Amino acid sequence: MRSFAIGVDLGGTNLRIAAVEDSGRLLQSLSTATEVARGRDLVLAEMALSIRELARQFGSTHKLAGIGVGIPGIIDLSSGTLHSAANLPGWSNYPVRAELEKRLGVPVLLENDANCAALGEKWIGAGKEVDDLCMITLGTGVGGGFVIAGKPWHGLIGMAGEIGHMTVFPDGRLCGCGNYGCLEQYASATAIRRMASEAIAGGQAQGLARCMDSDPAFSARTVFQCAVRGEATALKIFSTAGHALGIALASLINALNFPLYVIGGGMSKAWEVFSPALLDELHKRSIVFRAGESAAGSPKSTTVVPARLGGDAGLMGAARLPMIARSSWNFCSLAV
Amino acid sequence: MRSFAIGVDLGGTNLRIAAVEDSGRLLQSLSTATEVARGRDLVLAEMALSIRELARQFGSTHKLAGIGVGIPGIIDLSSGTLHSAANLPGWSNYPVRAELEKRLGVPVLLENDANCAALGEKWIGAGKEVDDLCMITLGTGVGGGFVIAGKPWHGLIGMAGEIGHMTVFPDGRLCGCGNYGCLEQYASATAIRRMASEAIAGGQAQGLARCMDSDPAFSARTVFQCAVRGEATALKIFSTAGHALGIALASLINALNFPLYVIGGGMSKAWEVFSPALLDELHKRSIVFRAGESAAGSPKSTTVVPARLGGDAGLMGAARLPMIARSSWNFCSLAV
Repeated sequence: MRSFAIGVDLGGTNLRIAAVEDSGRLLQSLSTATEVARGRDLVLAEMALSIRELARQFGSTHKLAGIGVGIPGIIDLSSGTLHSAANLPGWSNYPVRAELEKRLGVPVLLENDANCAALGEKWIGAGKEVDDLCMITLGTGVGGGFVIAGKPWHGLIGMAGEIGHMTVFPDGRLCGCGNYGCLEQYASATAIRRMASEAIAGGQAQGLARCMDSDPAFSARTVFQCAVRGEATALKIFSTAGHALGIALASLINALNFPLYVIGGGMSKAWEVFSPALLDELHKRSIVFRAGESAAGSPKSTTVVPARLGGDAGLMGAARLPMIARSSWNFCSLAV
Repeated sequence: MRSFAIGVDLGGTNLRIAAVEDSGRLLQSLSTATEVARGRDLVLAEMALSIRELARQFGSTHKLAGIGVGIPGIIDLSSGTLHSAANLPGWSNYPVRAELEKRLGVPVLLENDANCAALGEKWIGAGKEVDDLCMITLGTGVGGGFVIAGKPWHGLIGMAGEIGHMTVFPDGRLCGCGNYGCLEQYASATAIRRMASEAIAGGQAQGLARCMDSDPAFSARTVFQCAVRGEATALKIFSTAGHALGIALASLINALNFPLYVIGGGMSKAWEVFSPALLDELHKRSIVFRAGESAAGSPKSTTVVPARLGGDAGLMGAARLPMIARSSWNFCSLAV
């Protein structure tokens, strides 16, 4: 009898829940109607209901390994309390694990969402062949997560992976974190929009201005589409993002010499327009990257690739959590 | 019966060998007369002779756990071959481990010297209380090593820890590695001397010029002594080193959230004159450092400290290698 786990991806706007087989096969996924904005208690009720439903549906053909929940915030792993979560108002200092375990009667594992995404990619995505990887997620902000020896790396206070706040230009733009020149100020979707807006306001980007006129949301996606069509200013903006990413990655590669760095998040779809500048920086700035390359053809060179699982990485990684923690308990039975 | 191990620190100029008890007590250390410049075969012969001598001396009261050798170069750990070592002419691509094991008849472990220093500090130095640490060694160059889960971290091709080549100023000084603005260009003893020399040549550093006139070697140590006496230009030079270190460390802390960063190497004696600028950068640039600090009084804050073992860290770490690898063989008996 195969086993399965239930993964939960608690995003800033929606809640996604999936039953995933230990083979990595997605058995079923649900995206609940409950918007996270409707509040903590409704979300938890909906979450528990959906988990029970999936547990019932697959409980006769599979053993349940457990429940994993990915949350966009800082988690105190020993107590299972959500320390802080900028996009989940009302959840800070809430004992999420205890509350879910009370409702479900089975062990629940919590994990930061970026770490879940890194773990998902390690399990069945771009990182299947390695034990150690670093994932950088490019979205509204820039986040990150490390998998070391096959497991999420938390750090001393669960804050490892703040790659978006690595300094790339010491005298650069002021970041919301208080620092100047953070990666996030150059390589997030927010930064792409800001750079486009500044270029248009400067009056030197008529081509880009025409593209953006057609998009009331003024989105990074439109800047990308404009870049794909060869518009010079849009290309330059993505090149700036690639250079910033390359500077941060070169430092990480020199320091850690990991085999794999995965670029995920919505912005990673723009890989074709920012990766040339990124790889150019790695060649120039990373002695370790170059040393790996000179061992040509062998599996010794550092790899930097776009993520494979897209928006599912976090969900799959959350489901993976109970599978890799299995030594701590036996298969569980959820009263459904 | 207690056990002991023999550690070897093969430096660019001298060879040091020590018998170290499993308690961390130094039983005896030898600094051989053989200068490394006299060539590989003489060094290996001297090394084997001294190892036998120490094994005989303590073999009746202690069990021998093994031999660990720290080498300033890139080591292929699977084959035990020294891949490259800039300061050991004639040693590149030499099967050091096989050669030593042939001469001694017991297992030998090789390790990069910076990793040995990090391991030594973890064992009986600044890192006794933690499992994970990053060590940065400030000497002629800037090196580094990571200990993760109590063991040296090698990375994909054994090149982890090239912290001196992290980019701190993207448009900064050209480094020997080909990159611009590497940490090593601002925080090594070489960089201190260069900055002093440039300031004096610029004619705006009479006080520093007088200090340096008394030192035919024009050493970083003299710049330090000048700074300790309050000379403004010398203080500014060490402040530049501290800022550069702080920028690199802030990025490492944000990425990894390790509990401890240890600053070692000869330059670490100048801690009092560069650490204020370093800590200032951490406060400004690291959201993770600040989050740890706000958990005041708890053991949750990131610690940055000077090394405790001084020049012995690498030697002690080398001796530690067979102790942490013990599961792979039994105590060994060296025919003496």
